[in-house]
Amino acid sequence: MALKHKDPTQFDLSDPFASSDSWRHARPLRYAQYAHFQGPFELECGGSLPEITVAYETYGQLNAEGSNAVLICHALSGDSHVARHHPEDDPGWWDIMVGPGKPIDTERYFVICPNVLGGCRGTTGPGSIDPRTGRPYGADFPVITVGDIVDVQRLLMDRLGIRRLLAVVGGSLGGHMVLEWARRYPDRLAGAVAIATSARLTSQALAFDIVGRNAIIRDPHYQNGQYYGNGPGPTVGLALARMLGHITYLSREAMMKKFDARRLEPHQIQTLFEVRFNVGSYLAYQGERFVERFDANSYLRLTLAMDLFDLGDTSEKLTAALRPAQCRWLLLSFTSDWLFPPFQSQELVRALVAENKPVTYCNVPSECGHDAFLLPNDLPIYGSLIEAFLNRLLAEEARSEAAFSENVDVDEDESLGPSSIYRHHRLDYDCILELIPPGASVLDLGCGTGGLLARLRRRGHKRLVGVELDPQAILTCARRGLDVIHMDINRGLGIFADDQFDCVVLSQTLQAVTNVKHVLAELLRVGKRGIVSFPNLAYRRWREELAVHGRAPRMGAAAGFHWYDTPNVRFFSIRDFEELCQEMNICVEEKVALNTELDTIVTDDPNLNADVAVFAISRRGR
Amino acid sequence: MALKHKDPTQFDLSDPFASSDSWRHARPLRYAQYAHFQGPFELECGGSLPEITVAYETYGQLNAEGSNAVLICHALSGDSHVARHHPEDDPGWWDIMVGPGKPIDTERYFVICPNVLGGCRGTTGPGSIDPRTGRPYGADFPVITVGDIVDVQRLLMDRLGIRRLLAVVGGSLGGHMVLEWARRYPDRLAGAVAIATSARLTSQALAFDIVGRNAIIRDPHYQNGQYYGNGPGPTVGLALARMLGHITYLSREAMMKKFDARRLEPHQIQTLFEVRFNVGSYLAYQGERFVERFDANSYLRLTLAMDLFDLGDTSEKLTAALRPAQCRWLLLSFTSDWLFPPFQSQELVRALVAENKPVTYCNVPSECGHDAFLLPNDLPIYGSLIEAFLNRLLAEEARSEAAFSENVDVDEDESLGPSSIYRHHRLDYDCILELIPPGASVLDLGCGTGGLLARLRRRGHKRLVGVELDPQAILTCARRGLDVIHMDINRGLGIFADDQFDCVVLSQTLQAVTNVKHVLAELLRVGKRGIVSFPNLAYRRWREELAVHGRAPRMGAAAGFHWYDTPNVRFFSIRDFEELCQEMNICVEEKVALNTELDTIVTDDPNLNADVAVFAISRRGR
Repeated sequence: MALKHKDPTQFDLSDPFASSDSWRHARPLRYAQYAHFQGPFELECGGSLPEITVAYETYGQLNAEGSNAVLICHALSGDSHVARHHPEDDPGWWDIMVGPGKPIDTERYFVICPNVLGGCRGTTGPGSIDPRTGRPYGADFPVITVGDIVDVQRLLMDRLGIRRLLAVVGGSLGGHMVLEWARRYPDRLAGAVAIATSARLTSQALAFDIVGRNAIIRDPHYQNGQYYGNGPGPTVGLALARMLGHITYLSREAMMKKFDARRLEPHQIQTLFEVRFNVGSYLAYQGERFVERFDANSYLRLTLAMDLFDLGDTSEKLTAALRPAQCRWLLLSFTSDWLFPPFQSQELVRALVAENKPVTYCNVPSECGHDAFLLPNDLPIYGSLIEAFLNRLLAEEARSEAAFSENVDVDEDESLGPSSIYRHHRLDYDCILELIPPGASVLDLGCGTGGLLARLRRRGHKRLVGVELDPQAILTCARRGLDVIHMDINRGLGIFADDQFDCVVLSQTLQAVTNVKHVLAELLRVGKRGIVSFPNLAYRRWREELAVHGRAPRMGAAAGFHWYDTPNVRFFSIRDFEELCQEMNICVEEKVALNTELDTIVTDDPNLNADVAVFAISRRGR
Repeated sequence: MALKHKDPTQFDLSDPFASSDSWRHARPLRYAQYAHFQGPFELECGGSLPEITVAYETYGQLNAEGSNAVLICHALSGDSHVARHHPEDDPGWWDIMVGPGKPIDTERYFVICPNVLGGCRGTTGPGSIDPRTGRPYGADFPVITVGDIVDVQRLLMDRLGIRRLLAVVGGSLGGHMVLEWARRYPDRLAGAVAIATSARLTSQALAFDIVGRNAIIRDPHYQNGQYYGNGPGPTVGLALARMLGHITYLSREAMMKKFDARRLEPHQIQTLFEVRFNVGSYLAYQGERFVERFDANSYLRLTLAMDLFDLGDTSEKLTAALRPAQCRWLLLSFTSDWLFPPFQSQELVRALVAENKPVTYCNVPSECGHDAFLLPNDLPIYGSLIEAFLNRLLAEEARSEAAFSENVDVDEDESLGPSSIYRHHRLDYDCILELIPPGASVLDLGCGTGGLLARLRRRGHKRLVGVELDPQAILTCARRGLDVIHMDINRGLGIFADDQFDCVVLSQTLQAVTNVKHVLAELLRVGKRGIVSFPNLAYRRWREELAVHGRAPRMGAAAGFHWYDTPNVRFFSIRDFEELCQEMNICVEEKVALNTELDTIVTDDPNLNADVAVFAISRRGR
């Protein structure tokens, strides 16, 4: 299937693998090292392999303690060449992420990237010779699972003398491997970075895989999988599968930007597929290129491994599946990813949180679809989060967490959530801190850049979780070594279990919440104690503004907000709040009224003299 | 490709065509009538057809005036059998919509549904005999366009003696036909109902079609399209295309509900495709069934007609394309439709509105994806909107609009938007009406169930448009014969042109809008005059509640709202609003202060004594 392309640079962006001209089984083989393992190896779905070869590449140096190794798991069509070893090398598929000074900094970390079992880029797969027959396995290659793939990666780690990985990192199918590592070998990794992945495919994603596989197995050249040295192989079917894959890797927005303007202008490529529309020539090009470098039997086996991956269809099963994990977690999804949609990452977060696993999660705003984690567009968020996460792991592994967190230079006065309209006063924090028993587990809703959480950590609290809506604030928290979950609390706290925290803090956030009663109810479901601070509408100054001047109280004036642009949407007094507590049968355990202008605690007529109130509340009859 | 299915009822829902066992070219032929036309007919993309036969079915009776004919345009895989003629008939593909007492009531309307040109269910298509050669056209069948399809439909209307259609109705590809009818034969239809359609496909949808066509043309049995009587034909390719199509017709949510629970339990069907997962057996079933009743060459020609349909890639081109249309419009999209996503219907709405075409639009809340318009789930909204629209058209065609609108029984006191927290007072309306010059064109933002618009219509205003967020309210408006556009004004008024209306009314809605300045700026961009009414926070009673009692003013108390659940998010006084006008350089032309409790106009200290204010504003320097 010869192919010429006029302007290949046009197509580079969405297929990091398409940029080299010397693909055909050349690039990884050029750079890869090999490890051979003698079997037999029994596989999860039955069948065995008498021997296994693993192609892999490494970057950087393992440190003396052996504590800086990072394993990278590639996705469906990736390989061991994750990055250039030298500037003049062929590009790697994740050069933006891995290299000197990159988020996964090869000057700090020892990076290992193996080609997966079942692949076709050096590691044993259907195209390898079965030593028992002297011929390629073909369709006789056993069905493999993500677990099998991970087991082989573990063999390689043993061979390399890496007892404990600093982190396992991967996206998509690679993310499935990360999940499997964490539950299968919990003591072998300190951190897990699972990107654009899921507990199992959606039925929609599964359906696309099935159509792709049907295109391959019903291609007459498939010949029941024994096509090696016997005709061209199922190139049409594989190309169709790849075309379909490409549609699912891009978001609709990304496709619009890429193809809409020159819709009727196909690139002049030589192909036996339809070339009528611009997007048609792109798909034909991607399909034809793919068959030059990928084996159809590997495609069948690896997509099936992905389709069979299933950590459970209920949150109970999923929670149980992840229960063995002992690592720290970073989960990343992308807003426009419809193949591995964000709600699936959120299901993972829920399962991890339910077991009190330390997890940071961000749903990265992106237009790039599933491919986003391979593209530079959103790297400032997702790359930086990975960088911060690895930094933290390395510091913790070196038993220097305290020193690490002190070193992070963040001005605590800036630690405001995006919905907070007040300058933070030490007094406000002090009050909240006093209402939190020593050692309590704390959930901080609308944690901003983590000022309160950082203070709690210094006070010795261990189990601390933040919830925040602003990705930049989450990044700041990650740099401070705090665990934060990206979430809109207006939608409830469904990912948290009943009574999961000793205290749930809602600091200067309730007034920005639409669904007040729901949030309060959720807060008291999740926390044994709720601590709520809010501005008091009935403060003397606000009363006067309305009563005397006939103006809406400018409660956000200090932060530059007006009635027409304040993030706050609920306005209420201490009295209003108390009446709501009564109506909701909420027990007010303690309350502190503050005058932050005078920096004092108010005891005389708080509803008139306090501008901020802090309430400790709980469910009645607990 | 024999096929047996254990439990076919399981699969009925998403393929209305799959429910009969007697499909193979039998059903439509059993019920269809035929019209023959002698050519030659020149086609848009070149080529010609020497003769054309049209298979069609009709329902109901044409009335004496010939004013009750409704043409239904089917989608890609539909046919003329839109509904049962008799209860014992095979099911039609739109039985839920067409029949006695159904939304398109065959006791009131004369319904015609022809099979499209290029199809394979009785109308001339690639499988028909070319009289010039005595053999089937096959791949020599010319490329056809939606315009060609519509031209043939028009021939049929001529033959049936229907000079003017009451309405043309269609979804998906059928919606493209509706658009083409309206611009090609503007004097031949009174109304256009375009459902789940677009000005052109997204690049994503186009890409899926291309993969499907590639699967067909690269199937070895395709034989360059001359497969009739010559082997099985490209059944594998066509089945793959259909599988792919099915994925795109369903929403992800719908697929989850349908397949997730029994993911690993495929139905036992005989098939040469993969049967491993529940969804896999569904796709195999749909694919195998489809090739029994559909011709691959028709699939190629009809998908290409859809892909080539393009009313322009800019709003200017689109507006120009729709400019000739003279009919009333009803546009419907479905929230979970990702093949023809709602934004595409909104682009059509924008183009129509830009030319002051009368249009009602609703983005029907649905979980059913693109298939929603074939399914009963959301019929209470979309079916009722179609019913109301046809009623209105029939009344208007009978020149009895006035009588019609008077007959509609709607309590005007209920005509509140969902964001209005006030009981409506005649006084409030009266004020607004007085500020609207006689005969002015009016846009009512947050029009609710259309109370103000109905009063304006009675006063003789012709150009009246409402904007509303609540589908139920839109339905009520449609029943009153009012044009309303489903839209969230917080996102701006982008679909309206500068100075498009004499007056834009924002009645008791500004307080429920987050983005106040943006909405005001948009209002004055679109309208020469803006009329804004809002509750006055500085009304004496509210001042007292805060100043004396220390409580948040209960401005929504009459409607049962509290500070924690009111739809209102902005609280401001007359003075605040005036200051904002000054800041935004807005000219206050007139203002009226009301005390709706006392039912009087307030002249003495309005900011203290009025609970509602009505402002007429404009851009300064107009």
